[in-house]
Amino acid sequence: MKISPIQIKLSDSRKEKPNPETLVFGRSFTDHMFTADYEEGKGWHSYRIVPYAPVTLDPAAIVFHYGQTVFEGLKAYRSPDGTVRLFRPEENMKRMNLSLDRLCMPKIDEEMALHALTKLIQIEKDWIPTLNGTSLYIRPFVIANEAFLGVAPAKKYQFFIILSPVGAYYKEGIHPVKILVENEFVRAVKGGTGGAKTAGNYASGLKAQEVAGQRGYSQVLWLDGIERKYVEEVGSMNIFFKIDGEVVTPAINGSILEGITRKSILQLLDYWNIPVAERKISMDEIREAYEAGKLEEIFGTGTAAVISPVGELNWDGYKMIVNGSETGPLAKQLFDTLTNIQTGKEEDPFNWIIELKNELAKLA
Amino acid sequence: MKISPIQIKLSDSRKEKPNPETLVFGRSFTDHMFTADYEEGKGWHSYRIVPYAPVTLDPAAIVFHYGQTVFEGLKAYRSPDGTVRLFRPEENMKRMNLSLDRLCMPKIDEEMALHALTKLIQIEKDWIPTLNGTSLYIRPFVIANEAFLGVAPAKKYQFFIILSPVGAYYKEGIHPVKILVENEFVRAVKGGTGGAKTAGNYASGLKAQEVAGQRGYSQVLWLDGIERKYVEEVGSMNIFFKIDGEVVTPAINGSILEGITRKSILQLLDYWNIPVAERKISMDEIREAYEAGKLEEIFGTGTAAVISPVGELNWDGYKMIVNGSETGPLAKQLFDTLTNIQTGKEEDPFNWIIELKNELAKLA
Repeated sequence: MKISPIQIKLSDSRKEKPNPETLVFGRSFTDHMFTADYEEGKGWHSYRIVPYAPVTLDPAAIVFHYGQTVFEGLKAYRSPDGTVRLFRPEENMKRMNLSLDRLCMPKIDEEMALHALTKLIQIEKDWIPTLNGTSLYIRPFVIANEAFLGVAPAKKYQFFIILSPVGAYYKEGIHPVKILVENEFVRAVKGGTGGAKTAGNYASGLKAQEVAGQRGYSQVLWLDGIERKYVEEVGSMNIFFKIDGEVVTPAINGSILEGITRKSILQLLDYWNIPVAERKISMDEIREAYEAGKLEEIFGTGTAAVISPVGELNWDGYKMIVNGSETGPLAKQLFDTLTNIQTGKEEDPFNWIIELKNELAKLA
Repeated sequence: MKISPIQIKLSDSRKEKPNPETLVFGRSFTDHMFTADYEEGKGWHSYRIVPYAPVTLDPAAIVFHYGQTVFEGLKAYRSPDGTVRLFRPEENMKRMNLSLDRLCMPKIDEEMALHALTKLIQIEKDWIPTLNGTSLYIRPFVIANEAFLGVAPAKKYQFFIILSPVGAYYKEGIHPVKILVENEFVRAVKGGTGGAKTAGNYASGLKAQEVAGQRGYSQVLWLDGIERKYVEEVGSMNIFFKIDGEVVTPAINGSILEGITRKSILQLLDYWNIPVAERKISMDEIREAYEAGKLEEIFGTGTAAVISPVGELNWDGYKMIVNGSETGPLAKQLFDTLTNIQTGKEEDPFNWIIELKNELAKLA
């Protein structure tokens, strides 16, 4: 493993840490960040951990105009004994490179990024909250920072890793949400950027979310952009249905983001010998299953919430109440198992967890 | 007209102006920029013209992560007598508000924005090149600058107008380009953001452009994302076909950007009594017309190039050579008329031009 040296400049002052009891998502950030620069011909260089500080960009920076930017999201957990756990971070770095390629941006060295992340977390380990349900959210991202108004890939980029202590997604445990099936707006289409974790996919979803919110729904269920028949994602999460004992989730098709929680759930279900399928799922099929009393559970999956059960699905005014608007047993079991593995309360039979105890000691 | 006061802070130093003979597109910027801030509950405020300077943003600024950003592009021309001309700037501000709304961003006051633009151009008028084919490119844009990692519309934004002197798009007059019909990648789909001028649409097009470039084509022809049959845009321009004496362009359908040059050409053709239609156009129709010897001209239209003739269209290996790879008479006539109106060499029967001579005098 070739590791470029990381320059470290520690902050002269330390911010006050937020109260873990009242932590929200994505509002407070730690004292330091990792960053690196890219220039055509020179590659990635100047790896450094520096005090968390504003970014200075020319107003003509390509990221503002043509959206060359990709990101990732993962979490670190800390046990009372001081062990820090990361959940499949190598999967995030791998996916980041797929996203970078789709956006014509230079790939990062995945090992280097993981090393930088580990080093940053070592420095910020006191920022990882330990209260049940809390964690340290990690946001790696790359932006094009060349000042140029031409529509072409930039020749200069900056890579960042920032950290944010976050609270439990569900203050009082997981509870089902109401979802509106989206018929007007489309998140992504085959041939577009839906499979990449890039800004434009999220910007395009805001309007639908706003309209759904006005109607009392917390998120939308995205349908495919071509036939408007097949289920794609829910909000910014992947989606699973339990129908007549079988678990189904939309197959990766180019417009769906391949979630790491999604992938882990597929492995878990397989491990448990629960029948599971990745395939196309139409809204007609969902409705038929519902009418036949066979639609047992629906839940979204993602890093922020882990599992988000769906209690109501509204399709053009036809309301399907799932599992009596209660969290289903499979959603509960998946949530408990995944979060227990993530926090070290349960054994990890898949080698998903990277424990930073030794790594931190070594780096100290 | 209610005009909020604009604070003006002039730069202590002036940059050297680029040589108009060697000007390129979007690389140099003037001494000053206009900017304003938005905060929920407070609205747009702090309108100011300040020295052109870097933007300082929190690394968690929403624009980097979720792509809330929209922009516009237009040009100012200066005659030897000092008259400054703007081409339909009110159309840009109107479209910017449509884009802002699609992205759940706060609308700007269009009159205010036009006033700010005029004021900024007054200060920077010596930056407007006068050499044939040169102009001052104007880039208004709005970015979400709130530091928050939640997927939700920001509560804070910043509006900018920056100016860039640009050279003739075609150094030796207009000449036809080779275009590849894109079958794999999709720019935008109905229900998405294709009708808005927002970063994500441009980011998604880079990959196709890169692949086309490797094959010797300067741009791609985008097809609809649903059936992959109907023509949408060419690169980041609208597209026109002259078939058997009639001019046709794809009708606005939600995934095509409604270009201001496109709109002006439709008016011009109508004024000239040339048959013109806005409707769906399939690649099959284009091929049939070509085989029947009726495909007379193809050209793209946009602010940067005004008119960009297509000399070759490659559809899955089937190469259509248009007008013997020469610029067609209609493309030439449209280019000459539009640029003559824009630069004041020809009368403007449509009231498209805003002359800033008097306005500048009044503001002085």
